[in-house]
Formats: sequence, structure tokens, C-alpha cells
Amino acid sequence: MESILTRSQCLELDRQDTLAPLRSFFNLPSGEIYFNGNSLGPLPRATTDRLLGLISQEWGVDLIRSWNKFGWIDMPQVVGNKIARLVGAGQNELIVADSTSVNLYKVLYSALTRQQGMRKGRHVVLTEADNFPSDIYIAQSVCQDCGAELRLLDDPDRIESALDDQVSVLMLTQVNYRSAYLHDMQRLTGLAHEAGALTIWDLAHSAGALPVNLLESNADYAVGCGYKFLCGGPGAPAFVWINPRLADQSRNPLRGWLSHTEPFRFTASYIPAQGIGSFQCGTPPILALAALECGVDALLSAEALGGMERIKQKGQLLAEQLINGIKDLEMDYGVSLVSPEAPQKRGSQISLSLDGPLTGAGYSVMQALIARGVTGDFRSGDSKRNDRPDILRFGITPLTLRHVDIHDALGHFRQVLDKEEWRSTLYQKIEKVT
Amino acid sequence: MESILTRSQCLELDRQDTLAPLRSFFNLPSGEIYFNGNSLGPLPRATTDRLLGLISQEWGVDLIRSWNKFGWIDMPQVVGNKIARLVGAGQNELIVADSTSVNLYKVLYSALTRQQGMRKGRHVVLTEADNFPSDIYIAQSVCQDCGAELRLLDDPDRIESALDDQVSVLMLTQVNYRSAYLHDMQRLTGLAHEAGALTIWDLAHSAGALPVNLLESNADYAVGCGYKFLCGGPGAPAFVWINPRLADQSRNPLRGWLSHTEPFRFTASYIPAQGIGSFQCGTPPILALAALECGVDALLSAEALGGMERIKQKGQLLAEQLINGIKDLEMDYGVSLVSPEAPQKRGSQISLSLDGPLTGAGYSVMQALIARGVTGDFRSGDSKRNDRPDILRFGITPLTLRHVDIHDALGHFRQVLDKEEWRSTLYQKIEKVT
Repeated sequence: MESILTRSQCLELDRQDTLAPLRSFFNLPSGEIYFNGNSLGPLPRATTDRLLGLISQEWGVDLIRSWNKFGWIDMPQVVGNKIARLVGAGQNELIVADSTSVNLYKVLYSALTRQQGMRKGRHVVLTEADNFPSDIYIAQSVCQDCGAELRLLDDPDRIESALDDQVSVLMLTQVNYRSAYLHDMQRLTGLAHEAGALTIWDLAHSAGALPVNLLESNADYAVGCGYKFLCGGPGAPAFVWINPRLADQSRNPLRGWLSHTEPFRFTASYIPAQGIGSFQCGTPPILALAALECGVDALLSAEALGGMERIKQKGQLLAEQLINGIKDLEMDYGVSLVSPEAPQKRGSQISLSLDGPLTGAGYSVMQALIARGVTGDFRSGDSKRNDRPDILRFGITPLTLRHVDIHDALGHFRQVLDKEEWRSTLYQKIEKVT
Repeated sequence: MESILTRSQCLELDRQDTLAPLRSFFNLPSGEIYFNGNSLGPLPRATTDRLLGLISQEWGVDLIRSWNKFGWIDMPQVVGNKIARLVGAGQNELIVADSTSVNLYKVLYSALTRQQGMRKGRHVVLTEADNFPSDIYIAQSVCQDCGAELRLLDDPDRIESALDDQVSVLMLTQVNYRSAYLHDMQRLTGLAHEAGALTIWDLAHSAGALPVNLLESNADYAVGCGYKFLCGGPGAPAFVWINPRLADQSRNPLRGWLSHTEPFRFTASYIPAQGIGSFQCGTPPILALAALECGVDALLSAEALGGMERIKQKGQLLAEQLINGIKDLEMDYGVSLVSPEAPQKRGSQISLSLDGPLTGAGYSVMQALIARGVTGDFRSGDSKRNDRPDILRFGITPLTLRHVDIHDALGHFRQVLDKEEWRSTLYQKIEKVT
């Protein structure tokens, strides 16, 4: 598919798309092409009724009884088991709890304090300088408290050579939030293990977008986000997975009462729950868990149609169409692809940078696109670093985007550039005066 | 009010009650007298519509734009500032974040690692053996990792004498979850400070039930729960407060991206937000925050009617009525008050134990009461410890309970005992066969 698709070719492709019926499972605002599902997934139609019933009946009428009657107490496991099916984990290995950052703290702390004893002399946590900042901040904190050293790599291709005998933990986000660079989890986990290190994978930008094979990759720990591709709603709870071979020797530093094997005995002596259950902490957030379950259910409805493999495949076709259109723009304007072109190296997102006369206009170009109903987002770069330019991000959510949407979005993009709409004062960044 | 009130006296008292109109702000199941607001607060009527609008419009239509358009990003502070008005804290000193247990971890870790340096040689965290288990589990974990020692006191009256020069932190739950014993925050904080220790107060059973005077008491740290008296919904997020004199020298070990002073700059170098903002962690849970705000708003609607002082006053009248009725039962049956009788020593809860022929029948008595629409709960004790008997708990939520409810509940209680309804096989505890 090297050539630019016509609108009627797109409509035909959409008609043939076996995943197309699932689009109706989502509430999509009319007149908008939404490329921000990598930041806040769209609303599944089932969510409103689920929350309405949960609030008015389960909470409103059955009140405290609902912890048992409606299985609230088991929701971290139940929703966790559903997410497990999307990320190649087994049953009862993954739970929903807290936020991604809190879960990362738990597993990194555990890896450094509990498993550290097995590998004396190893004091380094290895990650990328371009990892999501929250992961870096958490790792800085844990390293400081555990007497470990955080090493930040500038180049993802240097990870292999940096896996020396000082590395205790290799902590990576599988898909980079800026560039969409996709790590090979299986290969890097194998290399880390050969070098004697453990791996922690942040699946924030991969769960629900790509097939993830946690068990097959023999990864050690994973955390992930509920509000991006899993469509769990703003600030949805996150998840945490531990490889069963490590679960019982791991130790959750945030051992709240729901990590206890029998929380309702209310004993002062602490006995952790078996396996992943010990990585819960406080009382589970029921409203948010129910919303997350609706998002996960929408993705699981694709299981009979090929599941995450098929979702990835469609996402790659959409991305390829977008890339072809961008290349076409590139010939006329300084628009270039930042995300890897090879699909096996790219997550479900296309990132662009601007140069030539468009240098520094990224924010305004995105505002002009948004005004036309094409919603991506802008991430500013670092003016001192060429490898960290301003970026326009377009997340690809295969269940809600169509070929015709990509076609139309490209049309708008060309209009914004042809007409120099981005020069409008409406779209300029207003610096906060404080 | 020593004598037993007649039903018509109760109806008259309810008619005179200036807080009575606020009862209509809550959805209360018909035919039920709900005494579990100390465990899961009832549903405010405003919550359903608020969540419906949030889901269908803010998330469903405005999507990612709502972070700014509807102020999602500021909700931890906005809702925190409202809670501050209920607990005697100033503005911009309190935020909503994570769970009570996670917040306790943050502040205890901070107190031990950051403030520890000022008070060398102090290595003890002092608390009660009967503190809520989650608080104890968290403290055990933090103490283990920080090289501190957790001292558990059996008798709340021994705290003063236990405040020696080894104590670094006095960590207490203001109202005991079993007995409803209420600590004098101001006095104990003063004693702790004189002894050179910091204080951490868990307000799980006091926020929204009693006036709390954090600033006036000169407390150091506080955490609290959103789903009990604050009516924020099952598993609602919690809050954390730091006295402004300590805020900038405190350090959140769980420093996720929203604790950064400029999270949206996405820099690898960490600069904490000023003040309490640095005790956020991950992305805030918007659905749950909105529900919590509705609960807090319902309580704040009493501000013009006397606020928390008036709420406490009504709660004490209801509790006194309940105690008088229990004393009446006590003459005929082995029912006795476990919670302190003096109102200034008691939180908004009445706890009972059973003895004589009723010994061991607590679970069944509560089941029989529940079958009659009187919903309290049962907490099993420790058969080896006389000071820790089985307990029946009756939470007093002054905005939803009426004098007539207390009257009717007492009537049901007498019926359950007179007719020995609790002996029915329907109400016996079924031991789990596994």
C-alpha cells in the first residue's frame, strides 16, 4: 500500500474490516477524528449504564452489602484477569490497583530489596533517559532509598551493551510515549536474564494497543495504565503483574490491609496474600474499577475476531496509510516522521516533527488541526537537543479509527499547511503570565 | 436526656432539628435504618447526575480537553480544599490522592527519613496495638525499610508515659475503628512535641463526623478516608495533609509525575511541587474525585447551620439516645457498651459487646437485626483476649439518622432478643469449607 488511498478506496476498506462493528461499542463525538486514545481512551457505550447501575443500585440501595453481593471485593482480581488476557499473562497473576507510578514503586522496591540479596554487588537500575518522566522520578526515589544507582541511556540501541554485571534491574517502557519506539520485550528480557538482571516493563502504551506476551517473553514484572488504550476513563486505576516464578518471593512495601491473606480478620500480625494478591494495598476503587472493566470488555469483544493480533494488524494498516500521507506532505513541507517506520519497531502511534519554515510551529499546527476536528497532541521538545524535537502525536486506536478518518485527517493536515492556518493568532501559544 | 424517649417525642425532636432538611440530600433505601456510614457512607443524591454528566459529556464528548476545560487537573486541590474546611486545615494544605494506606506510607516515610536527621537517636514509631491493621502493616513495612522500631501500645491511656526520648513519630488513628475511642488530638500532639516527636493522625473515622482542628492542634501530618463519613463512594480516594511549617521539608517517596512542579514539561530532572502538591503521585482518579466532591459538598451544606460542630452535637444526641436504650436492654440481657460513655472520648459510633447467654452470638444477633432492616456490622474479637471481645458496631451519621430511627432500631433490637430471633439457623455463621 505505497500509494495514497482515495476516499472511496478507504470506505471500501472500512466496509471489509471485520473489526468495524466494534466501533459502535464506543461513544465518539461527532465531527471529530480522535487521535488521543493513547492519552485518554474514548468512552465505551456500556460505561454510562454500568456506572449508573453501580451508583444507584449497588451503592445507593445495597450499600455495604455490595462488597459481597456484587463481588466488589473481588474486582481487582476479576478485572485483572481480564486484562491478563490482553497482555499474555495467566490467570491470577495480574491485579488492578493504585496508579502506574505507585505500582512501579512497589515492584522496583521489591526487585531491589528482595531479589537484590541473590545478586550481591549489583546496584544499578538501567533505563532510558527518554522513558516517561514519572517512571524516572519513581526510580530516582527508590534508588536513593535503596542505595542503588539509576543509569539513564540516551540511545535505546545501546541497552544491550549497557547490560553489564552491575545491572540489577532493566526497567523499560515497552512503547516510548514520545517516539512510539517499540522495544522487543522477549529479546531484551533474554539479554537481561543472561546478564543476570531482572526486567520491569511498563505497558502504558502497549496494553490494549498491541499483543503483549508477558509469559512467553519470560518478563519478571510489569505495570500498566488503565486510561489510555484500555479506555478505563480519566485517571483509571493501573495494573501490576508479577511472573509466577517470582510472585511468592516478592515483597510489596505498600502492604495495606488488602494485601493481607485475611484482611477481614483484622489481626496486627501481617501475613501476605499468596501471589499477586499481596501487591494490593488499600480499599479498591470500585467506581473506577467498574469503568475500567467496561473498557477492557470492549477490547475483549475482539477476541473472537482475532483479538490483539487482529487489532495490531488493523492499527498497522491505519498507521501505514497515515505514514504514506505524511511522506506526501514531507515533499512539500518540513513534516517528518519521528516514530520508527518499520512496524515491528513502532507502537500504535505516529509522531511527527516539523522543520524548515515550520520549525517551532508544532503547537500552532496542532491547534489548527484541533480546530478542524483532528485531535492529536503536542509534546514540546528540548531546544538544546536535536534528538528531542517538538513532536505532534497521533495515537492509533484500531477499534475506533477508520481508513476514511485517516484520509480525512490527512486532508485537513494539508489544508492547515497549504492555507498557513497555523499562523492565525488564534492558534499561538500564550505564555502564562504569573 | 436520661429517660427513654417515646416515638412521638422522637418525631418532635426530628421536627425541631435544623439539620433535618439535609437528609433529603441523600439517597436512603426505604425500610432500612443504616448504621454503616462509618464503613460506607450513603449515596448523596447529587452524585448520580454529577457522574452521569462527567462520563457522558466531559469524558464522552470533550475527552482529553476536559483536563483543562473542566479543571480535572486541579481536582485533587479543589476537593482537598473543601475537605480542609471540614478538618480545620487551611487552604492549599490538603490534597486528595491515592488511598489512606498509601498516604500514610508517604508521610511516615517522610517523617522517618527526612525529619529523622533532626532528631538523631530517635528510632521508634509509637502506635496502638488496636490501631486499624492497615496502618500497622504500613508502619511495620516503613519501619523495616527505614531501620526504625514499631512500638504497639495495648492501652490508649499509656501513650503519655510511653512518649520517651526514643520516639520519633506518634502515629494514631483519632477514632478507634472498633471501640470508637476518641483521642484528644491537641493534648497528645502537645505532649508528643514536648517529648520531641512528630505526630501523624489518621482521620478515617473522624473527618466528616466530628470537628477536627488540625491547625489549632498543631498536628504535623494527617491522612484520611473518603468513603466513610465523607460519603465519597466505595473505595473513594483518600486525603493527605501536612502542616505548612513542615510541607517544604517533607519528601514524598512516591514521587510520581503529578508531584513535579511542572509535570507537563516532561523533564527527567525532578523538582517537587511546592507544599502539599508534592504529595500527589500518579494521574488523579477523576470519576472517583467527582463522587467524593459530591459527598463533601453534602457535608459542607451544613456550614450555614453550624457546620461540623452542629453535626457533632446532633450525633451526640443520637448516640446518647442509643446508649440510653442499650442500658435499658442491658438490664434484661448481656448487652454492654464498649465505646466510652463520655461523649468527649467517643467518635461517632456506638460499639457493643454481648455476654451471658449471648456470648458468641454477636454475628447472629447482627444478622437478625439486618433482616429487620437495622444495618450495623460485626467485628470478631480475639477469644484469648478479654479486652478484645466480639463487637457490634453502629455508626452514627448525623445528616441521615433521625431520633425516630434510633427509637425504631432499639425496638427491633429488643424484639431480636425477646424472641431469640438470633437463634434461627438463617442467622448462623457458615464456616467456609475450602
